Amino acid sequence: MQMTMPNSSNSPPVVLSAKGKRTQEAPISALIAAAVGNPDLISLAAGLVDPLTLPVEECLAITQRILSDRARAQHVLQYDTTLGLKPLRHEVLAHLQRLEGRPAEGLGLTADDLIITTGSQQALYLIADVLLDPGDIVIAGNPSYFVFTGTLQSLGAQVISVPMDADGMDVDAIERMLHELHARRQLDRVKFIYCVSFFDNPTGLSLSLERRKRLIEIVRRFSRTHRILILEDAAYRELRYDGEALPSIKCFDPANEFVALTQTFSKPFAPGIKLGYTVMPKGLLNPVLHQKGNHDFGSANICQHIALETLRDGSYARHLDVLKAEYRRKRDAMLAALQRYMPPSAEIRWTHPHGGLYVWLTLPASINTAREGFMFQQCLDRGVLYVPGEYCFTPDAAGNVPRNHMRLSFGQVAFNQIEPGIQRLAEVVRHHLAGHASAPCAWGGCA
Amino acid sequence: MQMTMPNSSNSPPVVLSAKGKRTQEAPISALIAAAVGNPDLISLAAGLVDPLTLPVEECLAITQRILSDRARAQHVLQYDTTLGLKPLRHEVLAHLQRLEGRPAEGLGLTADDLIITTGSQQALYLIADVLLDPGDIVIAGNPSYFVFTGTLQSLGAQVISVPMDADGMDVDAIERMLHELHARRQLDRVKFIYCVSFFDNPTGLSLSLERRKRLIEIVRRFSRTHRILILEDAAYRELRYDGEALPSIKCFDPANEFVALTQTFSKPFAPGIKLGYTVMPKGLLNPVLHQKGNHDFGSANICQHIALETLRDGSYARHLDVLKAEYRRKRDAMLAALQRYMPPSAEIRWTHPHGGLYVWLTLPASINTAREGFMFQQCLDRGVLYVPGEYCFTPDAAGNVPRNHMRLSFGQVAFNQIEPGIQRLAEVVRHHLAGHASAPCAWGGCA
Repeated sequence: MQMTMPNSSNSPPVVLSAKGKRTQEAPISALIAAAVGNPDLISLAAGLVDPLTLPVEECLAITQRILSDRARAQHVLQYDTTLGLKPLRHEVLAHLQRLEGRPAEGLGLTADDLIITTGSQQALYLIADVLLDPGDIVIAGNPSYFVFTGTLQSLGAQVISVPMDADGMDVDAIERMLHELHARRQLDRVKFIYCVSFFDNPTGLSLSLERRKRLIEIVRRFSRTHRILILEDAAYRELRYDGEALPSIKCFDPANEFVALTQTFSKPFAPGIKLGYTVMPKGLLNPVLHQKGNHDFGSANICQHIALETLRDGSYARHLDVLKAEYRRKRDAMLAALQRYMPPSAEIRWTHPHGGLYVWLTLPASINTAREGFMFQQCLDRGVLYVPGEYCFTPDAAGNVPRNHMRLSFGQVAFNQIEPGIQRLAEVVRHHLAGHASAPCAWGGCA
Repeated sequence: MQMTMPNSSNSPPVVLSAKGKRTQEAPISALIAAAVGNPDLISLAAGLVDPLTLPVEECLAITQRILSDRARAQHVLQYDTTLGLKPLRHEVLAHLQRLEGRPAEGLGLTADDLIITTGSQQALYLIADVLLDPGDIVIAGNPSYFVFTGTLQSLGAQVISVPMDADGMDVDAIERMLHELHARRQLDRVKFIYCVSFFDNPTGLSLSLERRKRLIEIVRRFSRTHRILILEDAAYRELRYDGEALPSIKCFDPANEFVALTQTFSKPFAPGIKLGYTVMPKGLLNPVLHQKGNHDFGSANICQHIALETLRDGSYARHLDVLKAEYRRKRDAMLAALQRYMPPSAEIRWTHPHGGLYVWLTLPASINTAREGFMFQQCLDRGVLYVPGEYCFTPDAAGNVPRNHMRLSFGQVAFNQIEPGIQRLAEVVRHHLAGHASAPCAWGGCA
């Protein structure tokens, strides 16, 4: 009750900090609120994972095992360290070696360069918070992961964006921008470049191998009096359905100087244990660790023991295969439905992701997909929900963002709801198309 | 390796934010480091809980139950909301009603006034972060819980302290201080009063009933143009071994305007699930919620389901009785050992807590208990570790803190190690006493 009547009494107001004032509700909450009360709604908006492939048996077996052993259970239920459970950090390092296809020594890493966090989101937050003062600059793709750009704004940072194409962030544009910032004597404000390097949110596209190497070379060159870091968010990395397995950007940082690489158990295993892990570059681990000490002294230990066991007993790898097969099937169903139902038009394009949970749909510039527009409401009325692309863009100098995109997720939606969901969406698009036409697609990866 | 050689390469330094620069390692980490390598050490320092009374069978039964039911398990392993699992918030509200001995409506509360966090520490952090700008003022007891005062310093807040005695914080001193701050036109910088209201850390003492009522009356009176809040940290509340059950300060805030009340599952159940909960006063819930959305979108869901089930099936209440009986026995053992081994002296006193995990020992002013002093090292050599009282005090205008106190914990230490631990400590005290004398004890609750 009081949440909706925040000031029904006569007490004077709570005065927030500057950060408190800058912190906005995530726009996704408003979408969820819009969806409440329509049980027939097909949500292509939610960033949740597929409920049917959650590792139920695996977690049951593991919790039975670790809690049946009294000595082990006493560790599981006690505090551990802020850095995270040591054997888990070792298993995670071994896991990273397998992903990169090279030994940790070659990566200049030990398990003590890793920190375990409450989802990778917490790591993103902590890194941003220990690096950014109001006015500092972060370079991100346009579009970009809107929850994190919201976090950056809450910290008072300036998010400067570069275009994205089929090969991910335009690194040449980053280089030009750094030159320009140098000329404007603002280079010292640039703290890091944020990059979702694999099957990104919202486009589903990955940074190409060539650009990974170039990006490291660029930050190294522009790190003159301070280090410009790369915050590599690889949350979707392991959800790869086809195409080649790329190494991380981190792989090209052999002295562990420039890249913080964050990954998560939420997408490739289960969000319910809410764990992530980050390889911290030199000089960043201790500041983040001390900050995390103030937050929580370490993430839930029982969750860390579950993560440890699933890596150790092989159930993680086996389960990931099950999960990838199902998401591949769902992605294919979404792409097939788009092909089948979307009206043929050079102005209607969508990405063909090789992994992750998202397809990025581009419509004619005349169609407004915004939360406050007609189309969003018509889709709700027809029973389909999407994430308006407007949330994912950094506004230009005039405060404008493109409003002809949407993010579609095949993550949580049931397989047999994908086709009807896209069908409903396509019907609304057809309706809006009656009499419109417009501009070319910037997405090299589009159909 | 790299943690100890943060800048072995030639890359330029990572430049931290102002907050990153202000954030220090918690002093307890240095204590733990000091203890490494001495397996015979008896630690009376650790804030950990008793390993033998952890709810192993309870957690085993609960995880089997919730993960054997596939439909339930799909919720357990999925994301939930940032605010926290709704049925858990309802159970927690019912639990609070039982603790306060009055219905929630009488407290002006619904389950939507509650937020679930990653330990109560996260709630303390979030509240401080959404309220405090550098230079803002927090009033706290002296001594106080050093991890949180460290957090306040990392946010750039000024911590102004008031004396403590057997009845807890001196609320008359708070009133005088607010008058003075008003006269100095600094009242608008005072954001909240921090109070560990039950069996506090480090003294084990509680705020008296009379002072609870007075404190609310004081903040109400001084909340002229903005609200001055009370952050009531009740982490140890449920660990009550004797004495009367006091209502919270929150109980005297019937319109839910002035008090944020934080409690935890870590002390009365298990730290391994790392969960806390907070009743938020009007106007504070949404800012904290949005901030938490940036941190993690909600604490680990599997932990929330475990907490829900233990409250629901009665195992929480049953287990708490077991745990209290054991801590009572350990507290009694510590008090008896202090009585038996400490040299008789009017200058050597200790608190007699009715609950919690800590005894606060005051030694003659001539004895220096500081981390860098002889006594600390001699205790380490003799095989006993304590928390130096210096960490718990806010420095005076000249930067000085008392250095003749220590915090002793009977939490984690094994029952049969308490007597030898105190015996070792007393031997070092006797050694130091040879030829010293000094001032009276301020602790009304002392022996």
